[in-house]
Amino acid sequence: MKVHYECFSCIASQCQKIVEMGTEDLGVRKRGILRAAKAIAEMKEDSIPAVIGSRVFLEVYDAIGNDDPFREYKELSNRLAEKVVSDLERENIDLKTALKLAIIGNVIDFAVGYSPERIEEDVRSMLGEELYIDNSDELFNRLSGAKILLYLTDNCGEIYFDRLFLRKIREEFPQLKIYIAGKEGPIINDATVEDLRRAGLEEIGEVISTGTRIVGVPFGLVSREFMEVFEKADVIIAKGQGNFETLSERKDGRIFYLLKAKCRPIARELNVPQGSLLCVRSPFGP
Amino acid sequence: MKVHYECFSCIASQCQKIVEMGTEDLGVRKRGILRAAKAIAEMKEDSIPAVIGSRVFLEVYDAIGNDDPFREYKELSNRLAEKVVSDLERENIDLKTALKLAIIGNVIDFAVGYSPERIEEDVRSMLGEELYIDNSDELFNRLSGAKILLYLTDNCGEIYFDRLFLRKIREEFPQLKIYIAGKEGPIINDATVEDLRRAGLEEIGEVISTGTRIVGVPFGLVSREFMEVFEKADVIIAKGQGNFETLSERKDGRIFYLLKAKCRPIARELNVPQGSLLCVRSPFGP
Repeated sequence: MKVHYECFSCIASQCQKIVEMGTEDLGVRKRGILRAAKAIAEMKEDSIPAVIGSRVFLEVYDAIGNDDPFREYKELSNRLAEKVVSDLERENIDLKTALKLAIIGNVIDFAVGYSPERIEEDVRSMLGEELYIDNSDELFNRLSGAKILLYLTDNCGEIYFDRLFLRKIREEFPQLKIYIAGKEGPIINDATVEDLRRAGLEEIGEVISTGTRIVGVPFGLVSREFMEVFEKADVIIAKGQGNFETLSERKDGRIFYLLKAKCRPIARELNVPQGSLLCVRSPFGP
Repeated sequence: MKVHYECFSCIASQCQKIVEMGTEDLGVRKRGILRAAKAIAEMKEDSIPAVIGSRVFLEVYDAIGNDDPFREYKELSNRLAEKVVSDLERENIDLKTALKLAIIGNVIDFAVGYSPERIEEDVRSMLGEELYIDNSDELFNRLSGAKILLYLTDNCGEIYFDRLFLRKIREEFPQLKIYIAGKEGPIINDATVEDLRRAGLEEIGEVISTGTRIVGVPFGLVSREFMEVFEKADVIIAKGQGNFETLSERKDGRIFYLLKAKCRPIARELNVPQGSLLCVRSPFGP
């Protein structure tokens, strides 16, 4: 997916959030923003939003001298999500519900003054929502015949919902070799390999790094080791917008996108109403 | 005033609004935004927000091939404000209330689905608000001893509130030679000399152009004719944020700023709470 016209101001707003989270010093915030204003000039007709965005963010990190401005935010997200998921795990959840929970986990902003009780309420109310596109039967069908699953994670917090879903996948399709990929280092609130390990995902599958801090699966920037896994996987589950943005033009039928179409560009690209919950198989073929 | 860290994302949001107002064509919107992303790289440590903003906006105008994207918005603002002001004019309004109305006229976004009745309600409720800094006695005192007043307008719509205030000034200080300045050409929703003429301001004073489309009074870009008036004026009334941004560092005690501190940078600069209504004399002296 290439940038849409809305991506510019969205990236700019995220830069503001980054400097606000990264430092209290107004002068340093300004230094970060001036760097962002320089870096965003690299945005081109065919830029991928997740990639140009990440590049700008990393410039800001460098300018403000903070390599992980979302650290506290991510820790809070993980803590709250773990609590909510551990309550849900006591119930007898089926595979389809676990899939929906993995999408819902992508939606919730855990760290904005939320109590675990409120989050649980929100999660339960969202479970009542229908998926706008639901290719989950096809996904499960393909998983039953697959040898290798690559699971591309997205954000902190959300990864505990992924864990719930992956445990169900593990139970239902015990033949699967599962790889679970996270980012090589901190970038906004994305889960790093470290976060995945701390969430205990190594008990379910092999935790691997994409080899880059750039959001999504930016070809040319991911590591060779990651590409080997990507190429041999029979099924790929890609969580969230960043993975969609970087993969959508591959027309790779092995990929199933699990996401909420949060912003207008993504909704426009997928031709769905903004806000839709989706489990959609990638279009495929030459 | 120099850019604060929040100015980047604010300018980016305004660019998005400009392309949305300027064209329905998604491809053209994107072209405008890509130009904005290039142009904003010119933002520097000591840029003035109104100036760098205007420069970026004019690049976007050029890229989308629309020299006045706010045309309809401005027409609607003028029409609604004229209606509201003509109702207010039937009442016996004193000079101080007229000054407050001129500030309130700067605040109201006339064109967002507003009925004249709703606007009137809002105006009357805001009249109950105290000015956070009120140097109006000093302003009136200086006007009574002055020969030349320069009145720097800001937005469309608002100019009808300015007209009301200027009529009261005309009545109370009949000795004054009044100059009323507008922009040379369209820039966002700012009032052009054309708008001032159409609002009948020539009956009250001499309508002049700043000589530039850049918002505010950007020294070096305003015309020589404008500078002559600026230099000979005894009192200068400067409406809105753009005029403040471009003039604040002059420390020119002839200037009285009438504005609402809408954004955090302006509020921070003036050391007032965000949202304050202000009639504040410029600090002065070397």
